[in-house]
This record gives sequence, structure tokens and C-alpha cells, in this order.
Amino acid sequence: MTLALDSAAQDLLFREARTANAFTDEPVSEEQVQAIYDLVKYGPTAFNQSPLRMVLVRSDEARERLVQHMAEGNQPKTATAPLVAILAADNEFHEELPALFPAFPQAKDMFFAERPAREQAAGFNAALQAAYFIVGVRAAGLAAGPMTGFDFAGVQKEFLDDDHTPLMIVNIGKPAEDASFPRSPRLAYEEVVTTV
Amino acid sequence: MTLALDSAAQDLLFREARTANAFTDEPVSEEQVQAIYDLVKYGPTAFNQSPLRMVLVRSDEARERLVQHMAEGNQPKTATAPLVAILAADNEFHEELPALFPAFPQAKDMFFAERPAREQAAGFNAALQAAYFIVGVRAAGLAAGPMTGFDFAGVQKEFLDDDHTPLMIVNIGKPAEDASFPRSPRLAYEEVVTTV
Repeated sequence: MTLALDSAAQDLLFREARTANAFTDEPVSEEQVQAIYDLVKYGPTAFNQSPLRMVLVRSDEARERLVQHMAEGNQPKTATAPLVAILAADNEFHEELPALFPAFPQAKDMFFAERPAREQAAGFNAALQAAYFIVGVRAAGLAAGPMTGFDFAGVQKEFLDDDHTPLMIVNIGKPAEDASFPRSPRLAYEEVVTTV
Repeated sequence: MTLALDSAAQDLLFREARTANAFTDEPVSEEQVQAIYDLVKYGPTAFNQSPLRMVLVRSDEARERLVQHMAEGNQPKTATAPLVAILAADNEFHEELPALFPAFPQAKDMFFAERPAREQAAGFNAALQAAYFIVGVRAAGLAAGPMTGFDFAGVQKEFLDDDHTPLMIVNIGKPAEDASFPRSPRLAYEEVVTTV
């Protein structure tokens, strides 16, 4: 046992977890999303800046608007997934920073006074949080179907504003049978890791 | 039990896991890093592009070179952590894409023929993988100390090349006592999630 994490948890989060392209009808409750958030909110970000924001698409009207901005191959699954979440980066996260990182409130002005620096930090750290969120969806016993195949400008205009940049859209639910493609190969350790 | 993941695993990965700023002398073995990689390599990326690359800094000589590029506040912990890993995005990941995503080998030329599109995709998807890696370090019973406070151009020149962009440097080891700052507050669910 090289890892401390138990084998069932390894399977649930990584080894047997798969991106789902089809789901059962079972709904995803508000309580489940809250439990996921309350777990993954502890994942680390720089200065605890926590720039990820989420829009849960629950009404039929909003879902219809969203589907129109999806790449064609993503439209059917976005139309039918029990829950669809738009993940975005808050480029104005610095307003919350003194509260989020009370040990060093000067960080707000020292590092994030300029919008380009904020956008860069928000994009990177919200991407970390998007990954924690995917892990969290799996921790809830659900499958995630993360997608970047959509019209980013269209989704931003339709559901967000100039201060919030879309990152990813995630279908969430219980996977249907045969909901996943065969697992693609991964790079060998030696192709990824070098030692100096 | 709203989550399927057992409570001990929740604690190990998120709830009790903390960013460490000091470590014991216990080394981090190659076997441990391999076990971490073999778990988190399954985390999803777009088209399974898997652009994350890692440089493990194990020699004293390389560590001395790295410390000089760290922000002053990060130098002591980088100098003393049992293992330091430089995480980078491979902007030429498309060369591996036909092997990594055999279901749609055309993706290489259809989406990633241009370097700016590759850099954007590599940066985002390697950030997802950096987050999976942090989760994996914790799954190994170790603590991670992720840092973005360093001279990115200097680290790229010293340890990487033009095709590999540094993302983050991670100190890894068993945490020393009092290795972490007090936990900073997190945003409430209502501040992060909206429903439409």
C-alpha cells in the first residue's frame, strides 16, 4: 500500500471514474451540490483567492438557451443531463481577498491591482478549483461530463458578465449504461516525469 | 451521508489536508511519486490531451539553482522540502494526441494546429492535472506546498525549454508540526453558486 487513500476511494475518484456522455433520469439535488462544494472548497488556491463561480442551469428555459451555445456534439448530452453547471472565473476576486486571506490583506493591492494580473490568476486558480469540483462530483457518487466545446463568448454574454470568464461546462448525474467511451491510454510515467 | 466517499478519505484529501510550509526529513521515494502519478493520470482532460509534465528536483545542485528563482518567502521551504516538483504545461502535446485520443485523431490538426490554441489548451488542462496531482500527493499521505511565487521566465530557462511553460512548483513531504497557517475562511455556497 504505497498510497494512504483506501482502494475503494481510489477507484471512486480516479481509477473507475469515467467521463459520462449519458445519464439516468435521477435528479441531482441542491443538497448534493452543496455537499460537493462544502468538500472541495478546501482545495488550495494561491492566497486562498477562490475565484471559481458556478451557475447551475436548472430551468428548461435556461437550458434551452445554453444548448444553443454548445458545439453540436455536446448538444444532446447538455439537453438531457440531470444537471448542467457553468464554471467560471471571477476576475474581480480581489474584492473578497482581504476577507479570504486575512494573514496578508495587502495582497489585494500588491499583486492584483491590475486587471490582466487578476485575469491570469483567476483563470489558473479557478481551473484548479474546476478539477477539485470534478473530483467532488465523483466523491458524491455521480459522474461528471466536463466540456470545453462551446461558444465561450456566447455563454459569457448569455449567463455571465464582463467580470466572469467561462472555463468549462459540466454535465452531472448518475451515468447511464455504456455512458463512456473506452478508456484512452495515458502517458507512461517516464514520458511525463524527468529528474534533475 | 450525502457523499459516497468515506469520511476518512474526505478528511485526507480536503477537510484536514493543509498546505504545508515545513516538512520532516523523511524522504519522498520514486515509488511514491509513481503511485501518485498512476492514480491521478486518470483525471480527465480535453481530448485526453494530458499536457502536464513534471521535473523532480532531487540533486543538491539543481535545488540550489531552483531556490535562486523562488520569491524570498518561498526560498527556505523550497531549500528544505524532501522533494520539490516543477509542474509545467507541454505546449507541443498535440504530437502525442493521436496516440492519446485514438477515437478522433483528427483533433490534432482540427483544433491544435496553431501554437496559441495549443498554449491556451495546455495551460488550462495542465492546471486541471496540477490540481489532480495535489489531490494525489494527499492521497499518498503526504502534504503538498504548491507555490506560484517564483520567477517563471527564470525557471523556464533554467529547467525547461520554449515548449514547456512552468505552472506551479510544489514542495512535497510529511508535514512538520505546526507546518500550516490557520485555515483561512472559504466563501459561502451562496456567494459562489447561482441557479438559473
